[in-house]
Amino acid sequence: MNTTMTKRRFLQSIGAAAGAGAVYRTMEALGLAGIGAAHAATPAPDLPADSGRGKRIAILGAGISGMTAAWELSKAGYHCTILEATGRAGGRSFTARGGDVLEETDSRQRVEFGGGDHLYANMGPARIPYHHRTILGYCKEFGIELEVFTNDNRAALFHNRDRFDGKPVPGRRVMTDTRGYIAELLAKAVNANALDSELSGEDKERVLAMLRRYGGLNPDHLYKGSNRGGYRGERINAGLEAGDVNDPLDFSELLKSDFWQYKLHYSQFLNSNPTLMQPVGGMDAIAGAFAKRVGSMIRYGSVVTEIRKTPDGARIVYRNTRTDAAEAIDADFAICTIPATVLKDVPNDFSPETRAALASVKFVPAVKIAFQARRRFWEEDHAIYGGISWTDQDITQVWYPANGYHRSKGVILGAYIWDDESCMRFAKRSPPERLQAARAEGERVHPGYAAELESGVSRAWAKVPFQKGGWPEFDDGVPEALTGPDGAIHICGDQITALPGWQEGAALAAHAVVNAIAERVAKR
Amino acid sequence: MNTTMTKRRFLQSIGAAAGAGAVYRTMEALGLAGIGAAHAATPAPDLPADSGRGKRIAILGAGISGMTAAWELSKAGYHCTILEATGRAGGRSFTARGGDVLEETDSRQRVEFGGGDHLYANMGPARIPYHHRTILGYCKEFGIELEVFTNDNRAALFHNRDRFDGKPVPGRRVMTDTRGYIAELLAKAVNANALDSELSGEDKERVLAMLRRYGGLNPDHLYKGSNRGGYRGERINAGLEAGDVNDPLDFSELLKSDFWQYKLHYSQFLNSNPTLMQPVGGMDAIAGAFAKRVGSMIRYGSVVTEIRKTPDGARIVYRNTRTDAAEAIDADFAICTIPATVLKDVPNDFSPETRAALASVKFVPAVKIAFQARRRFWEEDHAIYGGISWTDQDITQVWYPANGYHRSKGVILGAYIWDDESCMRFAKRSPPERLQAARAEGERVHPGYAAELESGVSRAWAKVPFQKGGWPEFDDGVPEALTGPDGAIHICGDQITALPGWQEGAALAAHAVVNAIAERVAKR
Repeated sequence: MNTTMTKRRFLQSIGAAAGAGAVYRTMEALGLAGIGAAHAATPAPDLPADSGRGKRIAILGAGISGMTAAWELSKAGYHCTILEATGRAGGRSFTARGGDVLEETDSRQRVEFGGGDHLYANMGPARIPYHHRTILGYCKEFGIELEVFTNDNRAALFHNRDRFDGKPVPGRRVMTDTRGYIAELLAKAVNANALDSELSGEDKERVLAMLRRYGGLNPDHLYKGSNRGGYRGERINAGLEAGDVNDPLDFSELLKSDFWQYKLHYSQFLNSNPTLMQPVGGMDAIAGAFAKRVGSMIRYGSVVTEIRKTPDGARIVYRNTRTDAAEAIDADFAICTIPATVLKDVPNDFSPETRAALASVKFVPAVKIAFQARRRFWEEDHAIYGGISWTDQDITQVWYPANGYHRSKGVILGAYIWDDESCMRFAKRSPPERLQAARAEGERVHPGYAAELESGVSRAWAKVPFQKGGWPEFDDGVPEALTGPDGAIHICGDQITALPGWQEGAALAAHAVVNAIAERVAKR
Repeated sequence: MNTTMTKRRFLQSIGAAAGAGAVYRTMEALGLAGIGAAHAATPAPDLPADSGRGKRIAILGAGISGMTAAWELSKAGYHCTILEATGRAGGRSFTARGGDVLEETDSRQRVEFGGGDHLYANMGPARIPYHHRTILGYCKEFGIELEVFTNDNRAALFHNRDRFDGKPVPGRRVMTDTRGYIAELLAKAVNANALDSELSGEDKERVLAMLRRYGGLNPDHLYKGSNRGGYRGERINAGLEAGDVNDPLDFSELLKSDFWQYKLHYSQFLNSNPTLMQPVGGMDAIAGAFAKRVGSMIRYGSVVTEIRKTPDGARIVYRNTRTDAAEAIDADFAICTIPATVLKDVPNDFSPETRAALASVKFVPAVKIAFQARRRFWEEDHAIYGGISWTDQDITQVWYPANGYHRSKGVILGAYIWDDESCMRFAKRSPPERLQAARAEGERVHPGYAAELESGVSRAWAKVPFQKGGWPEFDDGVPEALTGPDGAIHICGDQITALPGWQEGAALAAHAVVNAIAERVAKR
């Protein structure tokens, strides 16, 4: 180890060679790991100035990953060219606003949202968990204003057509009562001495005391409802007098509902944990900030038609959609962020392993549908400020906007679907049919819903040109062939990370590839 | 029942006579209750125009309650005069900004916060739960911009000096592991057939399936840690590779900590449930919006010295602090929002019942301490975006600002104390000593903390003139003598509601008193 090597560069070199996991194990061994080191776990590229001078990089795709790579490499003097098939930067990070046109393989929609800077819909990524340090770091670097995105709102609803008479139940009741019943059952087992082999006498008493608090049990360790679940008659809060608490929901109905499969624990999941953030004004503020910095490197309307290996690096052939002519660029390295769903069909010189890996990647055919409402009925009628309602219907979720509180209109997400079959049912429909179906399903969550909506737009990612899917789904991790270079070509994007579908994954992949290329350049 | 009476007026009359509980029981009986009716549960005054013409109302105190009453009554033509002891409207709703001077009975502090519209501290009420429909209704009516306040942030810390080697533990780990252990224990009891008398065979299987999801158990129903609690080494999230999940915290240590007493369940409580909101720029935006509307009715620097009953109503004697002269006003009705802690010592004509009730009310001597930090170390070093850390020390909580994300400085709450003994320890100290003590305790939650802080301010509400306490604490509900009029005098404020310490309570109390006075006027 070079004694003049900085700690950071040392960790970077480990990262480039062996991945972030190795970095972390090394940091742990060096005693560098700790809360304070969290943001350093995957080191951002910090390349020596001019270290890339004279090196040409072809970047395929002007999404978050491609632009991150271009931004970091260009700072070190690399000459980057980004080939982007569409006329827009950002890839799946797409925010729909009035006047936008959305194209799918067999349809065109014009967004009819009205004026007002709060009337938009993030049709791709829409939230940034607090621990997505890389993308948050860029938000800070670029001065992008952030606000809180609410996943977990206890006023939002749980709906199952076959349970609770098909009526939606507020989250505060479902969550409070589920905790209450679990605590009551466990207290009964403890009191019946059924867990004596697990718990010492002292711990037994502590567990019982904890369960009373955990579940809101009465002094006899029974769950008889709790004001945590609100007061009777949906008055919700105490007022002049406390009133009567709601009767608990029927436990057997709760068990028969699908709520506990994951909906009930949603905010426990690491990427759904509070706090989540969003850029003020739309998620595309991030892509926009990158595009402002690397825009001069982007060749829009450049559809890649061949990816070739050359003795000195790579040659990328593409169709210029304005002239319909074939053009080509030669580069020392290529960074390919094209989704595997599309990339596998581009003629290429990849190794058999890379080809097989690309063919094996399955993308979730996610669908999102957004509606503009003429009235913020969720706030006015239901005291719902942001958050997500759940239903067992295809639409799966209804998202309430985390902006424009109390203003005159709002854009809600009327469907966010990732189950394959549900997605395909919606994707097959024409855009107007999708809106109609989403309205009808939403009506069961919010009676009167359909009449509140004035326009809508849908995005079936499986049918979006140059994307053909929402995000990769790995049963067994990222195929190894995609994580290292194939000659001079580095596969990139969220598709090579453990954070598929997240901008964080896209940016981390770019960092890894940038570091790997810098390493190769340094060795030459 | 007058057949021309509207449904709303009918409910109001019940409310005035018998309280909101009765309204709700009536609504339920009439089938009017339901989610959609939530905001109507305590009807806002809707008095006929001019119905108060010629009636004089003396309002004691220009806090949220007094100003709400003045606003609603003046719309109906009542002539209102508000006597305010201090030179400022808002009462306990006080937002500290650079240049403000805070007076206590034995000290004066000047706030040294710097420029920047995000550098303020709400030293009184600081959050608005989604179900506080009345105060949110005024925010909407007055066009006050709102943003999310985060209570529950899984990146925030739990700290107990005697547990986990005195090191703070992130909320995601405490919460995930507690759920995991509870689920594992219950699964063991179910599998040992210890709950067969409670659960049918089918429900048993469903409970086991639920517990696997609920707690993140492995297929053998054991809790071995979960990625819900983050990855090892405080890297928090997955990156290029998923990494290893954290080992679970020791269950016995968790049980011996005080976390489960309530800190762990904090966001389950109805008034702490997400979503919570705050006005952009400071909570005093609400008081300011009221003051803009009723400001001409306020006589500042008017310290009430006598509250008398007269044959026609009430006479209020007060000292004009500018002239030091005694002045008086006569009114048909008086609305008295002066806190019981202060009111009980004002010479008065109250009935023995009212006097006894006032003397019985105990106020929490709450303390808040705010610091300006030169650097947003909570975001930079810990990925904490808003939310609350907990410690077993006197300071109890550290709040991270729910605004100004990623900006250069920030104001954190370095202590929020409501335990009597802890409060009194802090209240007795001089302001500089309080800051010193809060810095030292905060240092154990965030090593290096003290060096990050550049200035601070404290508020010991028990020592604030004309307040003498934070909010009333009722063991057995509001004393009945305070909920009805004593002659022409109506006690008002959050102190007569089941929402003490909340602006919602203040506004609801005002509504109840306004309705009651209107009822009396209509009957004359």
